[in-house]
Amino acid sequence: MTQTPWSATVLTLFPEMFPGPLGLSLSGKALMSGIWSMKTVNIRDFAADKHNTVDDTPFGGGPGMVMRPDVVDAALASVEERPGPIVYLSPRGKVFNQAMAAELAEGDGVTLLCGRYEGIDQRVLDKREIREVSLGDFVLSGGELAAMALLDACLRLLPGYMGAEASLEEESFSAGLLEYPHFTRPATWDGMDVPAVLLSGHHEKIKAWRQAEAERTTRTRRPDLWSRYCTTKGAGMSAN
Amino acid sequence: MTQTPWSATVLTLFPEMFPGPLGLSLSGKALMSGIWSMKTVNIRDFAADKHNTVDDTPFGGGPGMVMRPDVVDAALASVEERPGPIVYLSPRGKVFNQAMAAELAEGDGVTLLCGRYEGIDQRVLDKREIREVSLGDFVLSGGELAAMALLDACLRLLPGYMGAEASLEEESFSAGLLEYPHFTRPATWDGMDVPAVLLSGHHEKIKAWRQAEAERTTRTRRPDLWSRYCTTKGAGMSAN
Repeated sequence: MTQTPWSATVLTLFPEMFPGPLGLSLSGKALMSGIWSMKTVNIRDFAADKHNTVDDTPFGGGPGMVMRPDVVDAALASVEERPGPIVYLSPRGKVFNQAMAAELAEGDGVTLLCGRYEGIDQRVLDKREIREVSLGDFVLSGGELAAMALLDACLRLLPGYMGAEASLEEESFSAGLLEYPHFTRPATWDGMDVPAVLLSGHHEKIKAWRQAEAERTTRTRRPDLWSRYCTTKGAGMSAN
Repeated sequence: MTQTPWSATVLTLFPEMFPGPLGLSLSGKALMSGIWSMKTVNIRDFAADKHNTVDDTPFGGGPGMVMRPDVVDAALASVEERPGPIVYLSPRGKVFNQAMAAELAEGDGVTLLCGRYEGIDQRVLDKREIREVSLGDFVLSGGELAAMALLDACLRLLPGYMGAEASLEEESFSAGLLEYPHFTRPATWDGMDVPAVLLSGHHEKIKAWRQAEAERTTRTRRPDLWSRYCTTKGAGMSAN
């Protein structure tokens, strides 16, 4: 029995950008082997005039152009098979994180709407149940690179994506902490030794050292994550 | 007099991914016109053995592979002209934001180090003054897509990148708020009207409406940004 691939549909003015980097490396292999599938829809194909206009000036004035609601709506209506939610990549959205990646990866797929210019007319976002998702607090020239990053984060969680070698168990954010530092051969390099505990073969001590490093790094670099971690841990402990 | 282009150097195991999406659209035009330049370095070219090995198992055990410090260091040493800081894309890094994009765009360029597998041996990160930067709290299969997003955010701030039409003035995050919603033609679409104030031609009222919408959206969607905005505003007021 063949399983239906996890499905990514991308609505964009630049379909030629896809799969792009996602067509290489592990995601490219997974695409070839049918773990996921991808389809692009060129929003410009749904322009109603002979100039293929997709945007117009903003009501109320101001710089830039806004993508027309009728054109975007027609592009969305054209996608008949649409497993999973519609996600609009926008700096106004909910900030993307590993929990969202896991949630999307568990579903059947996602439809990604990529804006350009100043963004998309609010009415089409209101009409359809569109989730606004932001990659972070920075402005990109369009949603395409955000869509690729979002897809990459989801794809690597799909069953069969990773080889037997790799594992998702001990990763960043799964425990709410940043990862401990990594070391490999040579054991002494450029006058610097690998921390002795890692060569000790003492599994309990290694585990304790890594936990302490993960906690120290998180506390120093990301007070926001650290305070959330402490709260969750405290809550978890009192519930026991 | 020709100005030196803003310079992006990317060290990666997948140089064929670049410029990729950045070779199209506005960033592609800017690349062609010499506003920025890009160079890739294939880290695998600096492997020392006949198998071109770049990684090895982690000391202390655990899943995955770690990129060797000697190989990464040799790749970095090969980049003679290296304007700007070295940035390693890693979920352990400082979270990328618009202020960092602006800071990098104001400089001469950036050297981006893309990891794969579990990451890079900590010693080479310590030896060279490498800034760790994270795109957000999610895990990608490598640094490449994060590097592209970071570059895109920087590139669009370079002088000459945007046409005369566009403007960076009223954008997301510049005021510490999410942007107000956008509307364009048709004024009535699918039974939904554009907010009347935007058709009024009354600039002061439009400005006030947009400010109120930006504040409302930020307060509802991003309590973290909202609280920072209120603090800054409060501090600014008391300083006057």
